[in-house]
Amino acid sequence: MNSKIVLGPNQYGKAEVRLVKVTRDTARHTIEDLSVTSELRGDFEAAHLDGDNAHVIATDTQKNTIYSFARDGVGSPEEFLRRLADHFTGDFDWVRGGRWSAESYAWDRIDAHGASHDHSFVRNGRCVRTATLTRDGDRDWLLGGVKGLTVLKSTESGFVGYPKDKYTTLPETTDRILATDVAAKWRYRNAGADVDFNKTFDSVTALLLEGFSDGYSSALQNTLYQMGSKVLEAHDSIDEIKFSMPNKHHFLVDLSPFGQDNPNEVFFAADRPYGLIEGTVQREGMPPQPEAWEGIAGFC
Amino acid sequence: MNSKIVLGPNQYGKAEVRLVKVTRDTARHTIEDLSVTSELRGDFEAAHLDGDNAHVIATDTQKNTIYSFARDGVGSPEEFLRRLADHFTGDFDWVRGGRWSAESYAWDRIDAHGASHDHSFVRNGRCVRTATLTRDGDRDWLLGGVKGLTVLKSTESGFVGYPKDKYTTLPETTDRILATDVAAKWRYRNAGADVDFNKTFDSVTALLLEGFSDGYSSALQNTLYQMGSKVLEAHDSIDEIKFSMPNKHHFLVDLSPFGQDNPNEVFFAADRPYGLIEGTVQREGMPPQPEAWEGIAGFC
Amino acid sequence: MNSKIVLGPNQYGKAEVRLVKVTRDTARHTIEDLSVTSELRGDFEAAHLDGDNAHVIATDTQKNTIYSFARDGVGSPEEFLRRLADHFTGDFDWVRGGRWSAESYAWDRIDAHGASHDHSFVRNGRCVRTATLTRDGDRDWLLGGVKGLTVLKSTESGFVGYPKDKYTTLPETTDRILATDVAAKWRYRNAGADVDFNKTFDSVTALLLEGFSDGYSSALQNTLYQMGSKVLEAHDSIDEIKFSMPNKHHFLVDLSPFGQDNPNEVFFAADRPYGLIEGTVQREGMPPQPEAWEGIAGFC
Amino acid sequence: MNSKIVLGPNQYGKAEVRLVKVTRDTARHTIEDLSVTSELRGDFEAAHLDGDNAHVIATDTQKNTIYSFARDGVGSPEEFLRRLADHFTGDFDWVRGGRWSAESYAWDRIDAHGASHDHSFVRNGRCVRTATLTRDGDRDWLLGGVKGLTVLKSTESGFVGYPKDKYTTLPETTDRILATDVAAKWRYRNAGADVDFNKTFDSVTALLLEGFSDGYSSALQNTLYQMGSKVLEAHDSIDEIKFSMPNKHHFLVDLSPFGQDNPNEVFFAADRPYGLIEGTVQREGMPPQPEAWEGIAGFC
Repeated sequence: MNSKIVLGPNQYGKAEVRLVKVTRDTARHTIEDLSVTSELRGDFEAAHLDGDNAHVIATDTQKNTIYSFARDGVGSPEEFLRRLADHFTGDFDWVRGGRWSAESYAWDRIDAHGASHDHSFVRNGRCVRTATLTRDGDRDWLLGGVKGLTVLKSTESGFVGYPKDKYTTLPETTDRILATDVAAKWRYRNAGADVDFNKTFDSVTALLLEGFSDGYSSALQNTLYQMGSKVLEAHDSIDEIKFSMPNKHHFLVDLSPFGQDNPNEVFFAADRPYGLIEGTVQREGMPPQPEAWEGIAGFC
Repeated sequence: MNSKIVLGPNQYGKAEVRLVKVTRDTARHTIEDLSVTSELRGDFEAAHLDGDNAHVIATDTQKNTIYSFARDGVGSPEEFLRRLADHFTGDFDWVRGGRWSAESYAWDRIDAHGASHDHSFVRNGRCVRTATLTRDGDRDWLLGGVKGLTVLKSTESGFVGYPKDKYTTLPETTDRILATDVAAKWRYRNAGADVDFNKTFDSVTALLLEGFSDGYSSALQNTLYQMGSKVLEAHDSIDEIKFSMPNKHHFLVDLSPFGQDNPNEVFFAADRPYGLIEGTVQREGMPPQPEAWEGIAGFC
Repeated sequence: MNSKIVLGPNQYGKAEVRLVKVTRDTARHTIEDLSVTSELRGDFEAAHLDGDNAHVIATDTQKNTIYSFARDGVGSPEEFLRRLADHFTGDFDWVRGGRWSAESYAWDRIDAHGASHDHSFVRNGRCVRTATLTRDGDRDWLLGGVKGLTVLKSTESGFVGYPKDKYTTLPETTDRILATDVAAKWRYRNAGADVDFNKTFDSVTALLLEGFSDGYSSALQNTLYQMGSKVLEAHDSIDEIKFSMPNKHHFLVDLSPFGQDNPNEVFFAADRPYGLIEGTVQREGMPPQPEAWEGIAGFC
Repeated sequence: MNSKIVLGPNQYGKAEVRLVKVTRDTARHTIEDLSVTSELRGDFEAAHLDGDNAHVIATDTQKNTIYSFARDGVGSPEEFLRRLADHFTGDFDWVRGGRWSAESYAWDRIDAHGASHDHSFVRNGRCVRTATLTRDGDRDWLLGGVKGLTVLKSTESGFVGYPKDKYTTLPETTDRILATDVAAKWRYRNAGADVDFNKTFDSVTALLLEGFSDGYSSALQNTLYQMGSKVLEAHDSIDEIKFSMPNKHHFLVDLSPFGQDNPNEVFFAADRPYGLIEGTVQREGMPPQPEAWEGIAGFC
């Protein structure tokens, strides 16, 4: 065994820069609300081994850059991340790539006195939008995403036909509650493409909801595939979509000790453990793009 | 000093019973989603001092009761809590009162293929509804509430005219972002009244949003009072409303080192510390009702 | 009904000021790590009703004051809160009282090369210390406390002899796991007393652990009383102690379908729902001190 | 473009199975407290595409298996995960691999009456231990780990010599607080080796603390490399170690407006944003093992 110790893969940056951008061109303001993370990859060996920081662009500098760039607007998280990537890999020749990511939070205008307000907003907590741009030299990978989209269907879901071994006690059912928190990330075929990312996000989210709702679910795996297929069918710009979804168990409460029936009406919503279903829907023949997904939890 | 040691105030029960009730009378299902807590007060001294549990209605029994009662529907959290209170104080003569509380979570129907779906739902994360019923013998106190309602106004807010002492460094401003997470609890004058609690919740929430939006805010205290007044003016059934609201600071980023101006466009949204504004708006001459509020965090 | 609307009880301030104080008088540093909240009560009506902030000591000023006072050291959370209270009620005649509270986090010295290090520390996550000082005019109430102290006994706990009604399905047991997260707050008889608060905290925490461990527990209520009694017996400076403790259920797993016995060895640790046991142990004849406890969650 | 849509990589299982194992061979009990996740990979295409669950070993069955296996003791998380992997890949020929992971939580015996108690424990919150076993056919990868180990050094840390561009405003310093939450995962060279994993965990954790403490830190990157090197030098069984560590900023408070100096004594501990430093220390010439790390957040 070679016992010489060396530095392996590494990256660093500033995480969760909380940015709120108000656009006040007219009395009808708009707001963009993000948490942005910038991480750089390149030649940082001297900092690790020799304590020489000549290549270490301060994480504070990265934060300042994010705020400065926001002065010109955000537009979409995806485009904003591309601007950051271009800057850091363009201005510093030892920065060979990195990962830039964002969460964004939607706000609705408040309805007051029968009209939507010009500058008062209420946060729409339905889900969080995500975006990730990974760059390695002249290659880019761009992911859009959504998380925390909690959905439930109160019927048209079952689970039967699974193997029964000595550890199996679960009874089969053809009518149960199916519930999950949708976390999905989709990869754009061309990371530099001129896509309307905001419009695509809205469309993908609507398709995911529709795919969850349609028909009978024989398992969450089956529903996952249906959701992903809908997205790829409708969006030629997207080559693959990955999901990480808990099966949030709702257990039927046994009311018989109290002299009551329970025809799928009263449920206990459990916290842990939960099923965890992860899967990819993709175009056939697509070469794997592991660089897009490494270091991202829960997307195998 | 009397050194004899005795038992003081106490209560116990089951907390956060996660209940999902599906109503399937027709193909168009409805769901009610709650976390219910039941706590009993009364003569429980022997359990504490002597290890005699003859009075201790098991918390597991309280949980079972909640699920059994849900078989007949929930209706509104307030009405459901009244049924629980009547049961526990009616069936067990040593139970002199208690506190029953609930959070409830709203779900929207999913829009699929242009229509709202019959049995598929997406959780609406805008806020959480709360309710609390406190009983002591023949007296009841009933609170409705909301929490986690995050709002922001991008202008028409300032803070001037405050005292300047040796520790004051904050500059005055007449244009800033005002943002908070609204947590409010309102007390119904008559805990047993025949109020449409679901409709009242919707109305109060809408009034809080409108009160937040209207006019110029000279401080979050000023806005709090405006929000509370609107509710009391519109709802004769409500005698007081209490708020606990963080002032979620959005600091203007100094872009001048980068040669940029920043006319209230780019902000850093801070986590901690935060201002914390708590206050009550009530009808004049109303006697204090401390029993309604004890043990509830953040509502002075 | 009088429909005139007025301002009721209110308070405001700065919450969760994260303060780390390093004392570097010698090469052997010490650190104090706190989250401090300052809330003022008094005449703030004009701010709410008229938008006049002349009485509103900015929450930013309160934060600055906390940091400035820390320059002279913290000593103990309780003493630090007294200094803050004296300042705000002394310097501003319309401030008639308030509530000052703190959490503090313990750090251990790192053991390196066989010796405890002079300036390197690892956070001790066993529990969080709390303190609260409430002032109303010339009256003070002072609470010490602990939270997040998670304990478990693997035997010598049972639950029998409870009432059986139609909703009771729980079987009796004389051997179960008892587990809880101890949250306790104790009130010093004399809020201005010259007590060694740091030493008292250590002693009370040790007594709580000992009280939890000793003997057979017939219910968590029984254990609570034993824990509280130990503290009051040992500390004449303390007049009452309140607890809020979840009964963290550990359910025995039924292994019989797999041909195995389970003699209290394999448990499922559940999250929700949980029992919730709250109670007070106090000296006989002590008049209630509701002012000390209002607005504090879970301590009835 | 080929528009045919297919299933890509996927896995599923049961997550966060909360297992507490009491060993009661003698009156001096021991406890093992884990959260175990089991995820299977293999031929699950029919479940996704055709709604055929013949290959879907129910996640409930996986949970049962975990509890049943615990009847014979856990031993170490790493060994327990190997038993699970052998079972699932051995009993079901379409299961070609998977990922099994665990968190474990340490408990200390309570000191009562001058002795450590036989069956009463207090949770030691210093850190969480982690373990992950990945299997693909006949290849295994085994990771040990730790997270939530919060450390701070109050001097002997600085940051100088970094590039200054137009976005740089950070001043250089040779004396600051350095603080982080250590999350590290180390890969054993031989996943099937007969290592004493519990002893190794204790040793690695101690070495990480020592590596953090030693000498002067020119940047967290520099400290990371020192920490990792210590582990690899001492443990021949480990081939690489990866870190994901926030730089938890402690900002010196400017007390000069209040007429005070601040010689590195009073700090504001910030939440967000934070630096994020991720890196690998490994043996030279080691081939990359991406399978061990995919789907694990924050370890590039």
